[in-house]
Amino acid sequence: MARLGIIAGGGGLPVALAAADPGAQCVGFEGIATDLPSDRLQMHRFERLGALFDALRGAGVTRVVMAGAMSRPAFDPAALDPVTTALLPRLTAAMQQGDDQLLRFVITLFEDQGFEVVGAADLLPDLTAAPGLLAGPEPGASARGDVAQARAILDALSPLDVGQGCVVAGGLCLGVETLQGTDALLRFVGNTPAALRGDRRGVLVKRPKAGQDLRVDMPAIGPDTIRAAVDAGLEGIAIAARATVLIDRPSLLSACAEHGLFLLAEP
Amino acid sequence: MARLGIIAGGGGLPVALAAADPGAQCVGFEGIATDLPSDRLQMHRFERLGALFDALRGAGVTRVVMAGAMSRPAFDPAALDPVTTALLPRLTAAMQQGDDQLLRFVITLFEDQGFEVVGAADLLPDLTAAPGLLAGPEPGASARGDVAQARAILDALSPLDVGQGCVVAGGLCLGVETLQGTDALLRFVGNTPAALRGDRRGVLVKRPKAGQDLRVDMPAIGPDTIRAAVDAGLEGIAIAARATVLIDRPSLLSACAEHGLFLLAEP
Repeated sequence: MARLGIIAGGGGLPVALAAADPGAQCVGFEGIATDLPSDRLQMHRFERLGALFDALRGAGVTRVVMAGAMSRPAFDPAALDPVTTALLPRLTAAMQQGDDQLLRFVITLFEDQGFEVVGAADLLPDLTAAPGLLAGPEPGASARGDVAQARAILDALSPLDVGQGCVVAGGLCLGVETLQGTDALLRFVGNTPAALRGDRRGVLVKRPKAGQDLRVDMPAIGPDTIRAAVDAGLEGIAIAARATVLIDRPSLLSACAEHGLFLLAEP
Repeated sequence: MARLGIIAGGGGLPVALAAADPGAQCVGFEGIATDLPSDRLQMHRFERLGALFDALRGAGVTRVVMAGAMSRPAFDPAALDPVTTALLPRLTAAMQQGDDQLLRFVITLFEDQGFEVVGAADLLPDLTAAPGLLAGPEPGASARGDVAQARAILDALSPLDVGQGCVVAGGLCLGVETLQGTDALLRFVGNTPAALRGDRRGVLVKRPKAGQDLRVDMPAIGPDTIRAAVDAGLEGIAIAARATVLIDRPSLLSACAEHGLFLLAEP
């Protein structure tokens, strides 16, 4: 039986994967916070990827899934093992690229070592949503227009490896998601001066970039996203059906209902 | 002799125009702050455009220039004059569009009343820059690459009426200018967590959008922009030659030199 390795970052997704597969080997990294209990985690270091690959193979792992938020790590050159040292030129080059290139490189790393890389949504199909209105009121024509405009902006940016999220309100773009992530975007939107924003509410659209490898970097929203969207004054969120992870779906949907925020999954 | 009317918003540009043409008729609006002395300003209200057009004509004004920042005004329906009432359906529709459409509509308003609309840069050619390095050190290959990436992002967004500015650092997009303007963008960039940004500095690119009417909405930078860029940790700024206003050029250039920030004007 193919044992699964869970390469765990922060947030609820690694926890959900670990709960669904009690036999999985969970891996954490020094300096990267996770919500998994320490007795389920085998800790590794980015500087010692050789030790990581050996440990996974030794534990009978043949498939790995990467899940959860990880910041770009600081490397301690003194701690490097030979495997990592050999990879260093390609690794540092990849780290200077956008997220897509870096993650594609990390997938290649594991595949070159003989591991199959699988996506969290393939393991847990219920993580994503079928098309339709998932929660909240049916969006009106103005909100639908804002969703379309935000999608057009994301489509335009997609070839440039920018933008998993965009906020449009009453036809005006209030923010584009960049490196800092969705929460930072929503805080920025919430700080828009009233003299500029008027009474516009607006929508957040979150979708994968064109060509994005959904095995390692699927957009995700959770109850925190809903709260941040409410704080930013938005009226709804539109996500990509079957390509956006819903973290803690029951809490997420009830938070939408409580605040009257629509959540729409679009093909 | 054709008398000039200066429709004045905030900032240094209306002040520079008024100083260059002592005979010009300067117009301010209730609720919009300007840096012009009150004895040079004739005050009007957005709700009474008929009165504004009559006053300009009565003062012998045939050409108008719009200059300086104006927020989208709140209208008091009780104060509307008949001319403005008749314009209201088109005006409110335009106010729900992006900046470009709104400003194009405002130009049309003045032209329909028989005024010629001229650009601040046409009146004061020294407001803009010829191509070349205007201040600071010659940008290196990495900074040039960041400038090119930011330009590609702005080019992609331009047809969607989004983005007069973009910050890229070490190949990563740290922010796209939206409704909130350049200073808000630079504050957002400056708040990027160090764990994400690393030691990347980055560049701000400010350019007009494709098809933008430069008579009323040319991008502008001033000494405050330089300070904000320094606070955001940037290493340089690239602007569009002959299509970006340099406010208070001597102070702007000396601020760049003082902080070692390059300022590049590109065709």
